[in-house]
Amino acid sequence: MASLKNDTFLRALQRQPTPYTPVWIMRQAGRYLPEYNATRKRAGSFLGLAKNPNYATEVTLQPLARFPLDAAILFSDILTVPDAMGLGLYFAEGEGPKFERPLRDEAAIKKLTVPDVGTTLRYVTDAVSQIRRALDGTVPLIGFSGSPYTLACYMIEGGGSADFRRIKTMLYERPDLLHHILDITAQSVIAYLNAQIQAGVQAVMIFDTWGGSLSAAAYQEFSLAYLKRIIAGLTREHDGSRVPSIVFTKGGGLWLEDIAAIGCDAVGLDWTCDIGAARARIGATVALQGNLDPITLFAQPAAIRAQVGQVLASYGHGSGHVFNLGHGVSQFTNPDHVAALVDAVHDLSHAYHTPT
Amino acid sequence: MASLKNDTFLRALQRQPTPYTPVWIMRQAGRYLPEYNATRKRAGSFLGLAKNPNYATEVTLQPLARFPLDAAILFSDILTVPDAMGLGLYFAEGEGPKFERPLRDEAAIKKLTVPDVGTTLRYVTDAVSQIRRALDGTVPLIGFSGSPYTLACYMIEGGGSADFRRIKTMLYERPDLLHHILDITAQSVIAYLNAQIQAGVQAVMIFDTWGGSLSAAAYQEFSLAYLKRIIAGLTREHDGSRVPSIVFTKGGGLWLEDIAAIGCDAVGLDWTCDIGAARARIGATVALQGNLDPITLFAQPAAIRAQVGQVLASYGHGSGHVFNLGHGVSQFTNPDHVAALVDAVHDLSHAYHTPT
Repeated sequence: MASLKNDTFLRALQRQPTPYTPVWIMRQAGRYLPEYNATRKRAGSFLGLAKNPNYATEVTLQPLARFPLDAAILFSDILTVPDAMGLGLYFAEGEGPKFERPLRDEAAIKKLTVPDVGTTLRYVTDAVSQIRRALDGTVPLIGFSGSPYTLACYMIEGGGSADFRRIKTMLYERPDLLHHILDITAQSVIAYLNAQIQAGVQAVMIFDTWGGSLSAAAYQEFSLAYLKRIIAGLTREHDGSRVPSIVFTKGGGLWLEDIAAIGCDAVGLDWTCDIGAARARIGATVALQGNLDPITLFAQPAAIRAQVGQVLASYGHGSGHVFNLGHGVSQFTNPDHVAALVDAVHDLSHAYHTPT
Repeated sequence: MASLKNDTFLRALQRQPTPYTPVWIMRQAGRYLPEYNATRKRAGSFLGLAKNPNYATEVTLQPLARFPLDAAILFSDILTVPDAMGLGLYFAEGEGPKFERPLRDEAAIKKLTVPDVGTTLRYVTDAVSQIRRALDGTVPLIGFSGSPYTLACYMIEGGGSADFRRIKTMLYERPDLLHHILDITAQSVIAYLNAQIQAGVQAVMIFDTWGGSLSAAAYQEFSLAYLKRIIAGLTREHDGSRVPSIVFTKGGGLWLEDIAAIGCDAVGLDWTCDIGAARARIGATVALQGNLDPITLFAQPAAIRAQVGQVLASYGHGSGHVFNLGHGVSQFTNPDHVAALVDAVHDLSHAYHTPT
């Protein structure tokens, strides 16, 4: 960490003192920024953007040029791993991600193998190296992956789903097949995140976007167990520094104790959890990341500031809090309102930290 | 209750002994039943069905003719109250409910008044009377309403919404306006549910479908406070029997203690809560209703039976449990699988009840 000009994010993840609460924003490099849309247009398509390290570097840095954020996050897609497995990721206009070859029969499932990350996902690790050089030690870079269960949702449904009918039918009828998919996917995610760490990411986050759609028992067996395996398989130190891990199950507020117990450094919270209550439950063992309702950003700056103040007050005094939204920023957000959020976090959070 | 041939549902809601666990299914009268679709076709439209007491009676009884369910629920739409307020409910083909005149400016909001339930919603109370006669004491009839916050979502958004941007912007910027809407709506819901009780419903349920989209603090202020007012305003006894109330906030698992404390008799659970854990938290004061994942019904009967067994085992021995899904049954469900569910509940639950 010695070479970082701003290490508040990494310190907060390890519950070490910081002078203020660090902040970054899920999907901070994204469609709410006109400069992102301009780059995407030049790239021709979303995948053209995500698979080209030059473009990925450019858009990763865009929000940092606008806002004094305390971390950068690798610009990439959540579905790179299944794409590397050969499922054929594509984006139908206005429909979100889809797979050309979703997992629809036992033969296809049994043929699934862990991809050679070094070749199939080289465009990601190249982007990581290039972004690290471009950042030049200003703030740390976060790497990420989807969770095995979340990836399996797309791999089996073939795209987004309102009710996850296909994967859940498999879960209840053929749990053996789903476990096979999750096993291969978890191995792949471990290799993928470790490759990102080797290339230079300084923290990793696992997005379990759909784990919260499961029953409590199914969450334990089909999502959390694989999150735990991933955490156990991660490179813990690189380049002399600890690489902290953040696990975020959207809709997982009921299971915070279980998530905190898998060995991650921090737990992401969606906006339905009271962060003070979450701290009382698990704050002794992990840092917390979150959790302002992203829709707060549609209100005027004064209202945004008031809501930021409530989240900070709820967490209370001391370290271990990384400020963020409780979910990705909406594409319809006014960037000036994001500026108001970042400023409010920095201004108001000094009162909760002891000068060091 | 003396005149009811099967009062297990009403007894379970009051945590009195029953020989087995009663079961009904949210949206049990609905599109998964071919006979429902036939009636709807004859009625010409969904509203033609819902606003005609003869048709409403017919479809309310359809699932009872197929399955040995322990309760009937009034067939009606969740948005009858805002429709009665003059917002102009309509259904755009394949798009769900919409309002012709959503609440988009302060003048319209200030003009909102409590409708005369006796005239504007007479078609509902007429349906209740007619259904009671048709049921002839076989099982109790449940009445229902949407919660004020859930109704306000549709009233302000003008229809369904993925992010509730309009209502939440109002919530953060003009909480006074939202409170005004919720106040008028809560008064209307009280009048509506009490009219249903006068007409003969033997229990009432309040569906807070969207309360779970709020932050913890906003839920307390903008949803739960109004649920509490409604419970306080309900007719507690009718015709010599207690009329139990059920409150269901989808996604409200974090707030069960708060919900149980508002004075309702039972709390509905979605499928993300472990029902045994929920019982340990609030089972000493309220009954619990739920909570099988509705997508379980896409699996084969043997798998459905196993999952039913898990929910029953998790709740454990004794009364106070009304079996249900954790959300409405999907329109794509095979009715034979619903039969398997109902049979499994009845068969397997005897083991958890002491013969009386």
